[in-house]
Amino acid sequence: MKKQKLTLPALDPLSVQAQTGSAYPNKFKAICEAREKAKIGDVLGLTNFGVNLTRLRPGTASSQRHWHDNQDEFIYVIEGELVLVTDAGEQILTAGAVAGFPAGKADGHQLINKSDHDALYLEVGDRTPGGGAEYPDIDMRVKMTADGPRFTRKDGTPYGPDE
Amino acid sequence: MKKQKLTLPALDPLSVQAQTGSAYPNKFKAICEAREKAKIGDVLGLTNFGVNLTRLRPGTASSQRHWHDNQDEFIYVIEGELVLVTDAGEQILTAGAVAGFPAGKADGHQLINKSDHDALYLEVGDRTPGGGAEYPDIDMRVKMTADGPRFTRKDGTPYGPDE
Repeated sequence: MKKQKLTLPALDPLSVQAQTGSAYPNKFKAICEAREKAKIGDVLGLTNFGVNLTRLRPGTASSQRHWHDNQDEFIYVIEGELVLVTDAGEQILTAGAVAGFPAGKADGHQLINKSDHDALYLEVGDRTPGGGAEYPDIDMRVKMTADGPRFTRKDGTPYGPDE
Repeated sequence: MKKQKLTLPALDPLSVQAQTGSAYPNKFKAICEAREKAKIGDVLGLTNFGVNLTRLRPGTASSQRHWHDNQDEFIYVIEGELVLVTDAGEQILTAGAVAGFPAGKADGHQLINKSDHDALYLEVGDRTPGGGAEYPDIDMRVKMTADGPRFTRKDGTPYGPDE
């Protein structure tokens, strides 16, 4: 992608500062803590859905494998190579590929950069309230609350700050 | 974009058949009737928002200039060159540029391909119900109804089938 000089409502998404980190309990965040998300939808003033330009360096994953109860997700691959993991196994997505994860569909998804180069993609998710997400591979679930996401074990007990 | 062999929930968006046409009254549809929209969000099973891969041939516009009362819109330019028209004037968007049009923001937008080559972009719009759209440059407005969009003059009177 070439840098462009644009004014709102247009934007060069590469001009937006990216954020790293994950709200997962410590034991689950290592794989995705280095993901770099530029919240371009927020900069554009969008509120009904979020749009991130996300960069995964080699070895980084988008998330733990999950699905959302109430929100759809969509991704578009811009650069590089991503492995999409679902119940059906793995497939490789390159520039121009899309994928969609409908609300409530019980098939967890995760993107992993197993290549030697950065991968860059757009991700869109709506802000329909409520629900949570299921993580089929690990002892974790999340519920959306008024105070933000609340991550627990599947039996509802919380993880401590050192877990 | 290179063709890719993918299986759902991933998809090569170029494999989705595009549709042309416009629901505008006849007198307003000429500029955008040839737009080619592949409804990839529907194919992916998404319901909370729509995602189209849209191709504008030279001389074609995305729409009449408009804004939505209740729905956000987002675009990402994949190939080619598009002129974005808003109250502030015109700017040229090329591959990698994004633009966002927040619900209820009274600044009409329109994309026009004034170049000699095809332009290809992604467009995302949420499906928050209700409201309509305003068209600042022409004597038209639209209200969303249970039967779909209802286009009228600004005074609410309908256009006839030959208008």
